[in-house]
Amino acid sequence: MNYSNLSLHTDKYQINMMYAHWVQGSLNKKAVFEAYFRKLPFGNGYAVFAGLERIVHYIQHLKFDDEVIDYLRQQEEAYQEGFLEELRNFRFTGCIRAVPEGTLVFPNVPIIRVEARIFEAQLIETAILNFMNYQTLIATKASRIKQVAPHDMLLEFGTRRAQEADAAVWGARAAYIAGFHATSNLRAGLLFGIPTKGTHAHAWIQAHDTEEEAFAKFAEALPDQVSLLVDTYDTLKSGVPNAIKTAKLLEAKGKKLQSIRLDSGDLALISKEARAMLDSAGFPYVKIIASNDLDENLIMNLKAQGARIDVWGVGTQLITAADQPSLGGIYKLVAKENKDGDYQPVIKISGNPEKVSNPGVKETYRLLNRQSGRAEADYIALGSEEEAREGAPLLLFDPATPYRSKTLHDYDSVRLLHDIYVNGELVYELPAVEAIRAYHESQLTLFRPEIRRMLNPEEYRITLSRKAWDLKMELIHEYHP
Amino acid sequence: MNYSNLSLHTDKYQINMMYAHWVQGSLNKKAVFEAYFRKLPFGNGYAVFAGLERIVHYIQHLKFDDEVIDYLRQQEEAYQEGFLEELRNFRFTGCIRAVPEGTLVFPNVPIIRVEARIFEAQLIETAILNFMNYQTLIATKASRIKQVAPHDMLLEFGTRRAQEADAAVWGARAAYIAGFHATSNLRAGLLFGIPTKGTHAHAWIQAHDTEEEAFAKFAEALPDQVSLLVDTYDTLKSGVPNAIKTAKLLEAKGKKLQSIRLDSGDLALISKEARAMLDSAGFPYVKIIASNDLDENLIMNLKAQGARIDVWGVGTQLITAADQPSLGGIYKLVAKENKDGDYQPVIKISGNPEKVSNPGVKETYRLLNRQSGRAEADYIALGSEEEAREGAPLLLFDPATPYRSKTLHDYDSVRLLHDIYVNGELVYELPAVEAIRAYHESQLTLFRPEIRRMLNPEEYRITLSRKAWDLKMELIHEYHP
Repeated sequence: MNYSNLSLHTDKYQINMMYAHWVQGSLNKKAVFEAYFRKLPFGNGYAVFAGLERIVHYIQHLKFDDEVIDYLRQQEEAYQEGFLEELRNFRFTGCIRAVPEGTLVFPNVPIIRVEARIFEAQLIETAILNFMNYQTLIATKASRIKQVAPHDMLLEFGTRRAQEADAAVWGARAAYIAGFHATSNLRAGLLFGIPTKGTHAHAWIQAHDTEEEAFAKFAEALPDQVSLLVDTYDTLKSGVPNAIKTAKLLEAKGKKLQSIRLDSGDLALISKEARAMLDSAGFPYVKIIASNDLDENLIMNLKAQGARIDVWGVGTQLITAADQPSLGGIYKLVAKENKDGDYQPVIKISGNPEKVSNPGVKETYRLLNRQSGRAEADYIALGSEEEAREGAPLLLFDPATPYRSKTLHDYDSVRLLHDIYVNGELVYELPAVEAIRAYHESQLTLFRPEIRRMLNPEEYRITLSRKAWDLKMELIHEYHP
Repeated sequence: MNYSNLSLHTDKYQINMMYAHWVQGSLNKKAVFEAYFRKLPFGNGYAVFAGLERIVHYIQHLKFDDEVIDYLRQQEEAYQEGFLEELRNFRFTGCIRAVPEGTLVFPNVPIIRVEARIFEAQLIETAILNFMNYQTLIATKASRIKQVAPHDMLLEFGTRRAQEADAAVWGARAAYIAGFHATSNLRAGLLFGIPTKGTHAHAWIQAHDTEEEAFAKFAEALPDQVSLLVDTYDTLKSGVPNAIKTAKLLEAKGKKLQSIRLDSGDLALISKEARAMLDSAGFPYVKIIASNDLDENLIMNLKAQGARIDVWGVGTQLITAADQPSLGGIYKLVAKENKDGDYQPVIKISGNPEKVSNPGVKETYRLLNRQSGRAEADYIALGSEEEAREGAPLLLFDPATPYRSKTLHDYDSVRLLHDIYVNGELVYELPAVEAIRAYHESQLTLFRPEIRRMLNPEEYRITLSRKAWDLKMELIHEYHP
């Protein structure tokens, strides 16, 4: 099985459109597509972009090899040999711009822009969306969890419930970017250099005659990182007392029991009692890990109840983003090459106003108030506009609620999209995951707490420049005069 | 990147337990684990098992190569070289039994049984659960959708919203097993031989000056499989009339327009009007495809409203199982080798009664009523019991509600678990996906409609043999006298 070749990780309609462009001779026409989402997940005030490293790997290895070409030939009699030859020679020759991973991103602001032959730009749509949608979703979910436990250790434990193997590793990476401290998935550790953590399972206890013996043998084998699961039989009557015995054994050897793990029952009550038992036995340093279908709401709730939990193992709810398991990222044509070789802006009309796309090749700026250092707005201008780039006074125009319009004077303007590919060349150095994580943390501080809060956050301002707005209106009226 | 090696697609605690067993000399003790789930997803009356092919590929390619060993050495100073050497020589030498893919499965009935050195059985837990949980979940979701549209064509369109690339292809395969007809994902087509289908995107229309021209050019390029997306500007005023023009162009060449696709708006209303327009223009053969965040409830609702939709393109809701994006499959130790080399049954106690495991090495039978041909119950016996195997009268004992107990006389008994690996040898020939799909269809007919229905299904009977029940009670009393 040619499992690692992702050239066909795309929808058939892409290949059909590529074929039709090839037949009609329009395959080399340039096109500009923008990827963005329309709605924030989980009612959060922001999303955390992730997926770029995966996209770069995908583009770098795009190759229609013999097996793939043979498959397409058998699949579809209509495909002419010339087309298959074109695919065989396929390589990405266009430009991709994207926000760096870890950046906070908002609805309708382009996250990725692809400028390429329409033949190429169509092929890569599906994979780009697939990677961006999942990884951004999980980074955002992880960031919500981080918000409710900013000073605790957070462990990603979701592999067995992840939606297959890719989700497990890329989800673990996304969680780490957003502030998690480690994953249980060793492959994610190997692939990305993320720290890994693990305790033991109930099966370790069950494989021994008694819990006490099981604990002692585990501590003997791995004395420097003993974390004991205490709920196999009865947490407070058996698990914690036996863990205390093990802690004593370890102290006798000059070692320390690191932690106990609670995986069932009333975590608020049990953690408090376990804490008291550990403290009164002289082990205040032993940490308490909790796991068991945790999410940001449960964690906040447990903290409100005064639960004595130091480390949170978060699995299913994080790795599947259970309360909203998909981000609706889309990839829309915004400009196409016309007969003169210029770009002509393109719009997608819809009966639903929020689904009407923003036409034209655009540039996006994040505007930072120089006094407060905080982000005021994302500003979407046509590529030809200079005002934001030069720091000139800028009208943040709000057509729906004009009284919210305001003019910004003293601001720094940061371009959101970075060059990733220029004419097919990878010009971007992928940062190490540690650097992305640190960058993400620094980015968070640019936003006021009201935007970052978990529940009913304030809406961050997204502004179209006056010219971009006028262009949109003009094209709408062209189709609906 | 060593991306294709899945030997570390496991939780760190597995490797820690393997290490502790190695240190303590218990690594070669045999153990029996059973994989099952406790609760059906989506309130459905059954689940559809999938994931076995993936598990077999994983086991076949399990190899701790140099890169993996080096990583573990750096990761964990505690690991001794002898342990790493043991990993380097790792291969699966145990036995795996499983139900065939496409089988209907029920709570607490073992789906997979692993009998192996505890060292091996621990390693593979995480991957087995990851594959089984996701693929079974999606096959079950697809089966629900199939139930509401049994005679319509069903297309899996979810790749861009899938939780990464593996989910897209294995999810497409799971949907196909459960009765979907095709996927948009070409890689799934290549890997598994699933039929693929595709139309075109809005971008094809936008890349042309007019919708009419775009349709005509697409039809010219792929005249034998023209399906036109009609909602780019205005479905009924522009899309359908232009599609009718294209249908006429095609007829003039002796070809036929296959279908139109609706992707937004009021699908009930629009499909009826589009149907009427097509019919009165003389194109009753042109099919109507609908897509746009469909699931079984929406489809049922649209059908109840008399929507004229022939083909359903189902994406996000299916590929992520959006209303319940994980199956809680677990893997529990049920027996361990004791000092005499015999198996000793093992239980996992829990404060939640439904979480108490069924101890002992068990055999599961599906009991088919010879008169009706329908499945009466799944019967879980200890391996040493012969009654069900021999067709002797069988008490279906219901300890919670004894008046539901009944004795079965005239029945056939089908063993659910098939040999997959015997002493490390793969003895099972993986069926082609078409055969699995046909097998699944035949299996459905074994169950009464009341069990299969989407809403409030009847609960299928799962019975522990009297001996299996007594063993469970005995072990519970041992821990809680």
